[in-house]
Amino acid sequence: MTTTQPRIAFLGTGLMGAPMCANLLKHGFTLTVWNRSPEKAQALAPLGATVTHSAAEAVSHADVVFTMLSNDEAVESMVLDPAILAAAHSGTVFIDSSSTRPATAKKLATALAEHQLQFVDCPVSGGVKGAQEGTLALMAGGPAALIESLAPVFSALGRLTHVGDHGAGQVAKLANQQIVAITIGAIAEAMTLVSRSGGSAAAFRDAIRGGFAESTILALHGERMINRHFEPGGPCKHQYKDLRNIQSQMALHHLQLPLTNAVTELFGELCEDGGAELDHSALLLQIERLNPKER
Amino acid sequence: MTTTQPRIAFLGTGLMGAPMCANLLKHGFTLTVWNRSPEKAQALAPLGATVTHSAAEAVSHADVVFTMLSNDEAVESMVLDPAILAAAHSGTVFIDSSSTRPATAKKLATALAEHQLQFVDCPVSGGVKGAQEGTLALMAGGPAALIESLAPVFSALGRLTHVGDHGAGQVAKLANQQIVAITIGAIAEAMTLVSRSGGSAAAFRDAIRGGFAESTILALHGERMINRHFEPGGPCKHQYKDLRNIQSQMALHHLQLPLTNAVTELFGELCEDGGAELDHSALLLQIERLNPKER
Repeated sequence: MTTTQPRIAFLGTGLMGAPMCANLLKHGFTLTVWNRSPEKAQALAPLGATVTHSAAEAVSHADVVFTMLSNDEAVESMVLDPAILAAAHSGTVFIDSSSTRPATAKKLATALAEHQLQFVDCPVSGGVKGAQEGTLALMAGGPAALIESLAPVFSALGRLTHVGDHGAGQVAKLANQQIVAITIGAIAEAMTLVSRSGGSAAAFRDAIRGGFAESTILALHGERMINRHFEPGGPCKHQYKDLRNIQSQMALHHLQLPLTNAVTELFGELCEDGGAELDHSALLLQIERLNPKER
Repeated sequence: MTTTQPRIAFLGTGLMGAPMCANLLKHGFTLTVWNRSPEKAQALAPLGATVTHSAAEAVSHADVVFTMLSNDEAVESMVLDPAILAAAHSGTVFIDSSSTRPATAKKLATALAEHQLQFVDCPVSGGVKGAQEGTLALMAGGPAALIESLAPVFSALGRLTHVGDHGAGQVAKLANQQIVAITIGAIAEAMTLVSRSGGSAAAFRDAIRGGFAESTILALHGERMINRHFEPGGPCKHQYKDLRNIQSQMALHHLQLPLTNAVTELFGELCEDGGAELDHSALLLQIERLNPKER
């Protein structure tokens, strides 16, 4: 540990936040943690974290403040809380690793700037496993020089890509979900074509493995479709929430994206028809529902 | 070479057929070849093939007859040519490795059965490279026992999967293309969301590599989109032909597949608007055309 390393506060030490904190500690950072349920923060004390009773107290000790919270409202009410704004010293960088709407990231950046505070939106992909192994994909939006200066912090957590200005990190996270959703739909429709034509969807999947149609989704979610194991995983309601945020972003820029529209509608119908809690690979059920078996 | 190995005739020794023949010879099969342009067949003589002047003559020496021809009409007029039907001895197995409509495969199976001849539809995936290396994905439709009995023949060419009854091999090949087309569309739409929101599509693609959105298409066609290199590769006109064959198959079974419909329309418009000869990754251009830049 060198004296030039920033002191870090981490607000929200849940499923994702806790292993991220463990990796920051492993890399020698001075870390102060806070969580709404204090026992989750307390679990990090044996690893070297200082646990505080209030978020503002954690922020007062920090040069860099991570937030990893459940949704836009939680992030906004935390970061723009007057007690937090008062506790942060000038120049502190807030890094929001939660998944939010891009507009929320822009709003936070603007509001913090008015208090001489800095902001980076940096949602992550890779799940709990990636958080534990320090192999998260970190998608950062904000000023290039600021993000570069934080390279040692990010490298404790995974692989950083600077995607663009404030909000661009959140757009990249949404666009990632957009590809996931449409690819799930592609496989569900292809399997339905095969099975309704009298072939075996399982044999079809075996046949095409490793070719041009290969994908992580064909490997993981394709297998769930074959086995009809639809326990989440990533539930349809979260996929649908992301797709609605994508629709908001499309509306903002007047974008027409026909496949995105079609898959949003399919997930919406599936959620309405009782599929909200199923894994998003259950989109197969919605495609099958559109196509009742003959006879 | 054992005496129990079937004697093989191969009709159509073009880009794909010639390396498939080379692998059959390498595995010790007795091979008779014929091609419309005789010089392409002649090139196989030094490897041990017997070259005939007529397709019927090749068939008269064979227990198994491969066809690898350009389209449905070429396959049908070849296999159902009275001279071929007369030359084939009872029980000969015709294996069509061309890509055709599933209905064509069923028609050939029925017509050949009337002459005590057998049929397997067995389109391939993996391109010239797969044909050369003997690593093609072979998708077979037809009777299980017949296909199992031909395992030594298929294993000279690649990895065989028995997908279902006659036509199911061709359905699997189409369904493979269906996934490819929709995945290309997914990436084109996601890149457009990112770039029109002010982010970098190239950085976005870097950020998501190796995650849930990873695919062969993201690796290969995603790179072409970033570099805007749209020389084929697989031209849009072929992709659109496959998608129209998929639409025929959907109509036959009254299938509603919304993403397939949307991507068929997009490729149709792209082909009409001058993109027919571009690589199918050029679907990005069609998505961009739907979304002219603001200002």
